[in-house]
Parts: sequence; structure tokens; C-alpha cells
Amino acid sequence: MNNPQLNKHGELQHLLSTEGLPSRILYDILDRASAFVDEAGHGEIKKVPLLHGKSIFNIFFENSTRTRTTFEIAAKRLSADVVNLNIGSSSSSKGETLLDTVDNLCAMHADMFVVRHAQSGAAHLIAKHVAPEIHVINAGDGRHAHPTQALLDMFTIRHYKKEFHNLRVAIVGDIIHSRVARSQIHALTTLGVPEVRVIAPKTLLPSHVEQLGVRVFHNMEEGLRDVDVVLMLRLQNERMQGAALPSAQEYFKNYGLTQEKLSLAKEDAIVMHPGPMNRGIEIDSSVADGAQSVILPQVTFGIAVRMAVMRLLAGDK
Amino acid sequence: MNNPQLNKHGELQHLLSTEGLPSRILYDILDRASAFVDEAGHGEIKKVPLLHGKSIFNIFFENSTRTRTTFEIAAKRLSADVVNLNIGSSSSSKGETLLDTVDNLCAMHADMFVVRHAQSGAAHLIAKHVAPEIHVINAGDGRHAHPTQALLDMFTIRHYKKEFHNLRVAIVGDIIHSRVARSQIHALTTLGVPEVRVIAPKTLLPSHVEQLGVRVFHNMEEGLRDVDVVLMLRLQNERMQGAALPSAQEYFKNYGLTQEKLSLAKEDAIVMHPGPMNRGIEIDSSVADGAQSVILPQVTFGIAVRMAVMRLLAGDK
Amino acid sequence: MNNPQLNKHGELQHLLSTEGLPSRILYDILDRASAFVDEAGHGEIKKVPLLHGKSIFNIFFENSTRTRTTFEIAAKRLSADVVNLNIGSSSSSKGETLLDTVDNLCAMHADMFVVRHAQSGAAHLIAKHVAPEIHVINAGDGRHAHPTQALLDMFTIRHYKKEFHNLRVAIVGDIIHSRVARSQIHALTTLGVPEVRVIAPKTLLPSHVEQLGVRVFHNMEEGLRDVDVVLMLRLQNERMQGAALPSAQEYFKNYGLTQEKLSLAKEDAIVMHPGPMNRGIEIDSSVADGAQSVILPQVTFGIAVRMAVMRLLAGDK
Repeated sequence: MNNPQLNKHGELQHLLSTEGLPSRILYDILDRASAFVDEAGHGEIKKVPLLHGKSIFNIFFENSTRTRTTFEIAAKRLSADVVNLNIGSSSSSKGETLLDTVDNLCAMHADMFVVRHAQSGAAHLIAKHVAPEIHVINAGDGRHAHPTQALLDMFTIRHYKKEFHNLRVAIVGDIIHSRVARSQIHALTTLGVPEVRVIAPKTLLPSHVEQLGVRVFHNMEEGLRDVDVVLMLRLQNERMQGAALPSAQEYFKNYGLTQEKLSLAKEDAIVMHPGPMNRGIEIDSSVADGAQSVILPQVTFGIAVRMAVMRLLAGDK
Repeated sequence: MNNPQLNKHGELQHLLSTEGLPSRILYDILDRASAFVDEAGHGEIKKVPLLHGKSIFNIFFENSTRTRTTFEIAAKRLSADVVNLNIGSSSSSKGETLLDTVDNLCAMHADMFVVRHAQSGAAHLIAKHVAPEIHVINAGDGRHAHPTQALLDMFTIRHYKKEFHNLRVAIVGDIIHSRVARSQIHALTTLGVPEVRVIAPKTLLPSHVEQLGVRVFHNMEEGLRDVDVVLMLRLQNERMQGAALPSAQEYFKNYGLTQEKLSLAKEDAIVMHPGPMNRGIEIDSSVADGAQSVILPQVTFGIAVRMAVMRLLAGDK
Repeated sequence: MNNPQLNKHGELQHLLSTEGLPSRILYDILDRASAFVDEAGHGEIKKVPLLHGKSIFNIFFENSTRTRTTFEIAAKRLSADVVNLNIGSSSSSKGETLLDTVDNLCAMHADMFVVRHAQSGAAHLIAKHVAPEIHVINAGDGRHAHPTQALLDMFTIRHYKKEFHNLRVAIVGDIIHSRVARSQIHALTTLGVPEVRVIAPKTLLPSHVEQLGVRVFHNMEEGLRDVDVVLMLRLQNERMQGAALPSAQEYFKNYGLTQEKLSLAKEDAIVMHPGPMNRGIEIDSSVADGAQSVILPQVTFGIAVRMAVMRLLAGDK
């Protein structure tokens, strides 16, 4: 089957999902991102003229100031022109179809679309539709994928752990509704992480999740034992009002990451979270702000990773 | 009478309406726009430093993401600084008058205002008020005018038909509510198109429309016969709920552009639409996506035309 | 006590309030702003590359298109990259704390935050929290302070009156709710203005206002007598519906600035207003548009003053 993410030369054409991306592409992105970060990993990311004259459109059918901001900053650091569109509140309400909207933006000579949409598959649909000189980055589609988040997580893991082939990684929380978890699992397995665990109550796990190559734990203490990396997930508030969970307190008791539970992991285990955090629900403040937390470096690396993806897609070959 | 669009040297001072603009100004804009488009007409529009250091304010009292985006892109391709203001939701609700808002923005050293307003005449009012070094582009005022849309239509017509003096052009649809139609009619007649037709039911035509120099048709089959250019108009959804129209289905039957009706026009006739389209209401999808449609090139040319207008108004003489 | 606005070398680290700023800092800002304005005081403010590559985040927890625009323009004139965030409508509604939001933005390598917040002290809280290489400008916090407004007022006064040490200045209107008035009083007294008056009904004056070093007047005719500068305040509409004021008409009669009342001030007195104005409520149109009004120059100088503050905080030393 055709992988719409790669062109006929096997180069990245769109970034839609970490699923189906070969490890050489993942490593290429991580290596390019490294070049934007200084050795200490927290220095200034310099503005470079690599995408000067290029037009990048942030098309957000679903509102997300934070994610949109990270892409906007990445694009501006590359000297591209950025146009932000909240499509939800505009032409779609005028009866125009999604693909007509996209065609119009293409005709304005976009070089790249960064797409966030509540429907799974929206970015794929757009990618299949546009001309070959236009590139699409999926900034989150429904429950499907959020590949730049997974890539910045991989960058962070490599930054602190150096290698992937000897790691035990646990993903904790609302797996079933999480596009982040899906994208993380595909990236981790492709990069050769030998043991990926998911830790969640049954109501927050997709059926047959083992088929993705992960080990399932319902007990957090067991699941965290001897892991190198803990990837926490955000618990959407709306889940707590539904049937999936009894209460926020009970969730925190069983699946909230505390210092006590974290002590079961390896001594040098790192703790990650895609943000925004619900302190006291999925993560205790002492852990979020603790010595093992690399949550803020994730954000910094996220800019570098998004710059790397944009450069790879739209830069001169 | 004084034409506020021209300065005392007869140069363009503001672009408020195609009415009253001499043909030499129209041709100047079209020629300058040509220079921003490559010969094939669909290549990349390069970023140029012509308005570097200039500040362009998009003041939108009426929301329109699409139109605002085209001006924003045009300004950025000229290297201007762009500030977007949705005034509707801001100071006007704080009791400030329109002209006080404008005075404040002028005092911030704007070089150009791009104004969209629901009231006819708003852009004129602003243009008459500002200091001579500030230029105003009307991006649509009420039912009055939308000159950059008409200019990009003229550019598109010339691109495909080369000349204006031997053309038969039909404008189809909701003429009475359309600022686009008004601006098209003035531009077409000024550029010497010998026959401009309007095709619409009586309820969607202004009284005495013939005085604008157009031929009136109520029957679409008759009106399309042997035309070179078909300019479709968008049918606002709200019209269909009013008394003006019996139903969307009936409108499509009588005034929707189908392949069958289009076959009555000249074999090489082109089809245009200002967008966003209501497929299946004013235009059939097979026509919108068909070989005679130049709807997407219109969008591309729209960037070049807006760059040309901005350059003409605010660039160094 | 530690002044968080100054670093250990006594240089400006954050601009949070005019209270506690030494006069040498105030003069430094005014002098730097002068350099951005031409001699006539109303020429073009040129774009300069002083902050090229720097990222400035406008974080507005409270909506204010006008104030946000002035900072955006100032930043763009300095060639900085500007990102606008309306936080009110975004992550804070996702349960994230203010400081987590700030930490995230810091991790994206912000160089400066421009903060507007409905809570007094919000900008202080952020300034105390961020790393030393990040600078905070308070763009208005609750009823507390709006220092750039006060600084542009000082710039305007100096522009027209040359010196501060021989002036009589009156601030008129809703003192109790006004962060502008507080910041003006501190700046005026620090710069050596010998007589600062406040003119307001008792219900719009804070108790013990005399302790700020001002003379209190409840009668506008008496208060305006022989002043050099009249600083009008905006009357928030919501005040008029509360218990504080009987009616807009009565307020205008007693405290609205008319030509007649203004004639009691010195012949060359200037009239200022922070905008947006309520014509016919706190100020008569004939005064707002009259020969003594310097309300629009204030806006122009505001860009220069904000550029000066940004340059001082984030520019190379």
C-alpha cells in the first residue's frame, strides 16, 4: 500500500502519523532537531533564514493556542511567513467544503499546512488532495495521531537516555482517547525500544491494544517497576464526568504519579507529560516539579523538532 | 466632483470602488500584478522587499477570514508589517466612535488601512478623514463595492481572453445584494467590454439596473448564449430563507450553472466565482471542477492584484 | 526591600509599575524614546533591527485590542518576532495554572512577556517566577498599574512642557478604579512635579489618596485653576450603572471637561486622555478635538516609549 507520507524517492512528503514512518526518517528528524539546540539542550534557538519567503498556514479547525503557538514560533525561527486561520469560525460556516477551503489556500501559494482537526483522518484527506509541492503536518487529528508531540518525546528520551534499544518505557493514563499515546507507541517500537508498557484502567484502554506490541498493566505499581521513562498522559476533564471514571480522587489514588509510585521505577527514570497538566489528578506537583521531571525541556525540544520537520519538508533539498 | 480615489496628480490615493476609476489606473494595476506572476500564471509569487518597514492594518469590522488572509499574504509577500484588528469585538464596544478608532490607528503611524465593514460607505468615510500619507483599500463595504475582487476578476479575464473590447460577459445570480457585481460592472464597462449581461430573477435585480449599461436577462439559457465569460455570484444562505427565493432547489434549477447550461456559451468560455462556493446551489460541482473553471487561478491572481494595489498606493514613487 | 524591577546592577529588569522606579530610569526611557521620534514629534518611526531574532509574547488574559496592537507595532518596528496569545480563552480553561502556562512559554524561549491581566499583581507574580534572561512588561494589571501608559504621558508632558519641576498637573475622573492614575501619580512625583492634583467625586477617590502626595479637589473649577496639564481618565461604562454615580449627564455637568472649564487652566495648558474616549461623558468633543488636545500625539509617542522599554529590557547591553 502507498504511504502518503513518503514521496517516490522515499523522502518525507507529509508528516501525518508516526505509524509507517521508517526509523531512518525518525532519526533524520531527531538529528536535524539536535542541530537547532545547543549542547546543553536549553540554550537559545537561533533564528535562521532557512525558510525565508515560504508561507506556512496554521489551519486550526479545533482551537489550541498552545500547539498553534509552538508551530508559529518554529516557523518564525525559520524566517517563514506564518498565517493563522481559525477555520472553525469562518468559511466552513459559510457552507464551503473542507477541500474547497484547502484548494483556496493552496491557490494562495501555501508551502505548508499545519492542520489540527477534531476528526481523525482530516490531515490525511488534505495531504492526499494537495499538489506535490505543498506539505502537510498533522498537528493532531481526533483520536488518531499527533506525530510532532511523539517526535519531541523521542527527542527528549534520546537526549537523556542516549539510546532506545535498552529502554523500558511506560505510558500511563487515558490511552483510549489519546492521539499522543498512539503516536508514541508507533515511534517507540520503530526506534527499537524493546519494552513499551501501557498502564491504565480497563475503561481507558482500547480493546486489543496488545496488538500494537505493548505490555498491558492495570496496576500502576507493577507497571512502573524498573522503567526508564514514564510518559504521563493528560486526563481530559470531560472523561471524569462520564462513565469511564468514578472520580478524580480515585483516579489520582490509583493512577496519579506520586513520588512514592515513581520510586518503583529506575532511580534515574525520567518523567514526561505533553501538557497542559492537571496537577493533583494525573500527576502530583512534587513529581511535576521534581528532579526527575523533564516536562519543560520537552517544550523547548518541541520547538527544535517542529523546526526540523518544517525544514525537512519545505527546505531546499 | 472630487474623486477621493485620485490625488491632484491623478494618481491612485485610495482604492474604494471601481466606479470612477479611469481605465489607465485599472490597466496600471493589472500590469503591475502581471509582474508578480510568472508567465504560466501559476508559479510561485516571490517575496519582495518593496514595502519593507511599512505598516498595514487589516481593520475588519465584519469578520472574513478568507479575505483578510489574502490581504495579509499580499502584504507579507511585499515584506510589510501586518497588524490584524477585529474591531467589531473591541474598542467600538467600548463606546469609541469609528473615526476616533481610525485616528488612533493613524497616530500609530499606519501606512495603509484595509477596511471591511458591513455599512456601505465606511471605507469612503475613513479615506476622507485620514491624512494624505495614509492610504485606504476597501475590502468590501455593505452592498456597495469590493474593488480588489473586481480587479482580480479583470486580471483573470485578461489572462485568458487577452483583450476586453471583443467580449460578451454574463454576471449571474444575486445582483441586488452583491458588492462584487457592482464593482465588476463598473470595471468591465470602463475597460471597454461591449456587452455586459446580468442574469437573475427579478427579485434579485436592483431596479433600473439597465442604467449601469448592462443587458438584463431573466432566463439563464438566453443570457448565457455565446458569452465568453460567466461570472457566477455567491448566493447568501440568508436570502433563501427570505421572501426573495422560493427554494434552493428551484434556484439551482433556474439559475444554477450546469454543464448543460454552460454549453450554450462559447466553447472556450471561462467560468469564475468569487468564493466561497455553494456547490449544488449556484453552481454544479462538475462545472466548478471542470475544464472551463478558472476559479482557483482567480485566487492566485488575487494575491498578485492585491500586491499590485498595495505597491501602487504605498510604495516609493 | 528588594525591587524586582531592577537587577543587582540597578538596571531595569522588568517594567511592572512606575512606583519604586528611580528618576534616572524614567529619564533613560524618555531619552531613548526621543531617539525613535523625529524632532517634529510626529514623523515616521523607522523600523530598526535592534531586537531581530528576539521573541516577544503578548499574553493577554484580559482582552484589549488597542493596547495589544501598540505593543505589537512597537515590537515589529524593532524587528522582533511577536506572538499574540489570548490566554483567557485557552489553556487556563483547561485547568492549567498561571505559572505552568508561563513556564511553558518560557520553555519556548521567550525573551519578553507583555502581560495584561484583570488581577492586580499578576505581572509581578510572573516576573518573580521567570528566569533572569526573561523580561516582563506590565500592560495593565487590575486596578494596580499601567506603567507604559504613564511613561507615554510623561513623554508627552516633557515634549510640550520641556521640564517637570515647574508644573501643576491635574488628574480628573475615576481615580479609584484607575491603574493609569496610580501609575501617573508615581511617575509625576518621581520626576519632580511639585503639584499633582486629583479631581473627582468622593465616590471615585480612594481613601487616604493624599498619602500619595497629591492635592484633592472635589470641585473641578477649583481643581483646574492655573494647571499646566490636564490628564483626563476614561469613565468605565459599568461605573455609571453602579452606585458610584448618579448619571452620565450629571457626571458630565460636574466633571466633564468643557472649553469653559478648561479656560480656568493656564492658557497653554495641554489636555490628555489615555483612550478610548467617551465623548460627551468625561470630555466634550470640542475639547477632544481642540487646539489644546494632545491626545493623538500621546498615541504616537506611546509606540516610541514602548519601543524604548523593549529595547532597554531585551536589547544588547
